[in-house]
Amino acid sequence: MQQGALGSRNDGHAMNFCSHCGNPVGLKVPPGDNLPRFVCDTCQAIHYVNPKVVVGCIPEWDGQILLCRRAIEPRVGLWTFPAGFMEAGEHTAEAAARETFEEAQAEVEITSLYAVFSLPHVSQIYVVFRGAMHKPEFGAGSESLEVQLFPHEKIPWDALAFPVIHETLTRYVQDRDRGQFDVHLGVVAKTPDGF
Amino acid sequence: MQQGALGSRNDGHAMNFCSHCGNPVGLKVPPGDNLPRFVCDTCQAIHYVNPKVVVGCIPEWDGQILLCRRAIEPRVGLWTFPAGFMEAGEHTAEAAARETFEEAQAEVEITSLYAVFSLPHVSQIYVVFRGAMHKPEFGAGSESLEVQLFPHEKIPWDALAFPVIHETLTRYVQDRDRGQFDVHLGVVAKTPDGF
Repeated sequence: MQQGALGSRNDGHAMNFCSHCGNPVGLKVPPGDNLPRFVCDTCQAIHYVNPKVVVGCIPEWDGQILLCRRAIEPRVGLWTFPAGFMEAGEHTAEAAARETFEEAQAEVEITSLYAVFSLPHVSQIYVVFRGAMHKPEFGAGSESLEVQLFPHEKIPWDALAFPVIHETLTRYVQDRDRGQFDVHLGVVAKTPDGF
Repeated sequence: MQQGALGSRNDGHAMNFCSHCGNPVGLKVPPGDNLPRFVCDTCQAIHYVNPKVVVGCIPEWDGQILLCRRAIEPRVGLWTFPAGFMEAGEHTAEAAARETFEEAQAEVEITSLYAVFSLPHVSQIYVVFRGAMHKPEFGAGSESLEVQLFPHEKIPWDALAFPVIHETLTRYVQDRDRGQFDVHLGVVAKTPDGF
């Protein structure tokens, strides 16, 4: 699910009213805490803003990887591997497989954890897996314009949707070339165009 | 920060009023979505409930690891490695080092990612690191009753705070014994006592 598309008016980073009692909230540092939080002036409920988890999958078939061209903003028309917000009650690997089916109509067997990248400027972490496709069946889900298998030498580097996609696939191709896949940890900083 | 202690009345899993406009919300499936969300009856804002990220660190000194005895509920009096909720704007490794300093007053250099565990029953993921202590200096932060270095053979297995701590340390000791540390991925299910 592409939450930004549906929920852009409330992305969890701003709050005017208490979701518990409906009265106004203000930013203050609660007792025993060291950061400002949204606190209800009336019922004193404290509302934390937490980073969000994006789960992704690099689907693999016969030396190629499956990418989706985005049908939704932001970055409509650009390419990504299947990725989206983890839902409450899921585990990470099943969430990545679900996103792969939703966006690329492909069934994958999650084979390994591949990367954990933090994007502090948008308070997200990406948890990315490798996924084995057992048959070359795929198609465009509602959030994709098209879905296509790419040999590594034909990855559309200049038309990737986000820096974290570029960083992940860069490492992936390097790992593939040297014949060993590591689990990658990193931070992807904000770029001049805001992503 | 131990959010449960301060924010138990609003843990992000229930919502009565719209945090954007203050009017009542109801659970419904938004157009284009496939899961029920809290949607404002008045301004139509959609409020997503997302899993939370807990970052943890196994601080290492001279063949021993540093554990904290919890001063706060739940599981007050039981042992854990330093862990807590990642804050907005952080990256995972720095958040784990921050929690280590807050709970155990120890400075660590994060050396590797160690585990990504999902706890679907509480919609949390644990991202756990190994951390090198460069000096044996530590103490009890405000959320700890005491902090102590343990040789692996003296880990207090019967007095660990949560199943995810038990699972992580079990794998850690196994890895240590065979002389190779992997990155672990897994799911820790709900236990009969609710953790």
